[in-house]
Amino acid sequence: MGKTYRPKLTNAGRPLTFEVEAVNERGERLATPIAGEHPLTLYLDKREIVTLMTLGQAPEALTIGYLRNQRLVGSIDEIAAVQVDWETDSVAVTTRKGVKGLRERLSKRTVTTGCGQGTMFGDLMDEIDSIRLRDDVRLKEETLHALLDAVRRHETIYKSAGAVHGCALAAGGEILYFVEDVGRHNAVDAIAGLMWLDRVDGCDKIFYTTGRLTSEMVIKAAQMQIPFLVSRSGLTEMGHKIASRVGITMLGRAVGKHYLLFTGNHRFVKQIGPTMLA
Amino acid sequence: MGKTYRPKLTNAGRPLTFEVEAVNERGERLATPIAGEHPLTLYLDKREIVTLMTLGQAPEALTIGYLRNQRLVGSIDEIAAVQVDWETDSVAVTTRKGVKGLRERLSKRTVTTGCGQGTMFGDLMDEIDSIRLRDDVRLKEETLHALLDAVRRHETIYKSAGAVHGCALAAGGEILYFVEDVGRHNAVDAIAGLMWLDRVDGCDKIFYTTGRLTSEMVIKAAQMQIPFLVSRSGLTEMGHKIASRVGITMLGRAVGKHYLLFTGNHRFVKQIGPTMLA
Repeated sequence: MGKTYRPKLTNAGRPLTFEVEAVNERGERLATPIAGEHPLTLYLDKREIVTLMTLGQAPEALTIGYLRNQRLVGSIDEIAAVQVDWETDSVAVTTRKGVKGLRERLSKRTVTTGCGQGTMFGDLMDEIDSIRLRDDVRLKEETLHALLDAVRRHETIYKSAGAVHGCALAAGGEILYFVEDVGRHNAVDAIAGLMWLDRVDGCDKIFYTTGRLTSEMVIKAAQMQIPFLVSRSGLTEMGHKIASRVGITMLGRAVGKHYLLFTGNHRFVKQIGPTMLA
Repeated sequence: MGKTYRPKLTNAGRPLTFEVEAVNERGERLATPIAGEHPLTLYLDKREIVTLMTLGQAPEALTIGYLRNQRLVGSIDEIAAVQVDWETDSVAVTTRKGVKGLRERLSKRTVTTGCGQGTMFGDLMDEIDSIRLRDDVRLKEETLHALLDAVRRHETIYKSAGAVHGCALAAGGEILYFVEDVGRHNAVDAIAGLMWLDRVDGCDKIFYTTGRLTSEMVIKAAQMQIPFLVSRSGLTEMGHKIASRVGITMLGRAVGKHYLLFTGNHRFVKQIGPTMLA
């Protein structure tokens, strides 16, 4: 199984915006762009797992990232094919050797909300304590500025239609991936899927999100071994607790030159110094 | 079973904000308020149903509204007690006569995401077609202005700590309930719970949300028989489709004097006329 292995994939992105008519406060009829939203029912080796409500920008990566972040599949090499079919609003995932104990694992599943996804929250918290993020990488303030500027200049569905959240994976100030979705967690999962497909390691990357830093967002970033988590929005108490526990470098309210550094201060470099993170 | 029946309830709201230290771009250490977030595992007649991640403002109402909107309980009169215990992060709901076929219904449950909550999406869509919203009620533009002004003046966690969504139920321009939560759907469910507890009928009310109008948000408003849905944010394609299908009067981007009227235009009155909705 070489580094070049990729599962067989469809390439079934949907149109991302649609126009509908609206009447504004001046009585004008306006063609208004709105974000797409489609149900996508995920079958893993013919067993129904979940229905994701998605923008449909990267449905194959979303599917792979969902299976990754839910710990239903342990490696991209286990996946033989991911086939999206919008005629039936479904995606069929075939594994090479089947998933051990799938029936039992699904029956034990507890549905978690708060924009959650049916994760086993207790198990995730146990896993968090075993995660060790790299401590020899740094984020310089000027790199943060460059990233926030790149995000600002990025063309987005949000700018035209709103109603979506965006996530980006960055190396230094450069955006590697930018995915938007109607659910915050779908956007994160799609990034996780792209990282698996392209064999991208999170251990020196920056994860950016327009969404709030809730518990599940912090857990997912840490699971991907990403030491830097940056949000345009605020955070919750449990997001803060988990970030402190796992030692991730977390910044909120990051817009333009502004930010609040909440945890993992040791990896953040305010002064201009030698480049530590390319 | 008179109108005065109420289940036995705890009154276990949590502190809504916490202070943590953050360092801003000027290097200043600031005590920063952040929103609470707590897991709350729901047991229905001793059977584990879901773990809700919640701000904890109205956990009993949230629990009741969750059971209502998931169609696990058909009437407030079926509920004997709702007891929240933050020592174990759990809420125990006892019904008066048990829930018929609960085990089978839970085993059939499909997890739905996009800030979803493990709802049976297909079943919900079937239900949507049977909903008839009142057509003899009107929303005047000046009532909308009054409501948006009341929302603006309302003291919120969002203003101090961000990272939450708010929902309100209004009669005319007057706010009856205002609930915030870390998940949009929790806030809606808590409102649904309060309406059951207080025997409030949705059929002439306005539902306001700071969140996006996705499919599930429109479905929940319609299920509560509410003919008017107003959001500060935008909407998705499926939110628009379902709103058109059920004929709800839906306004987005509603801030100050601005709004976009998307569907159900016949219930919206732009001109100043005789008061049709008190």
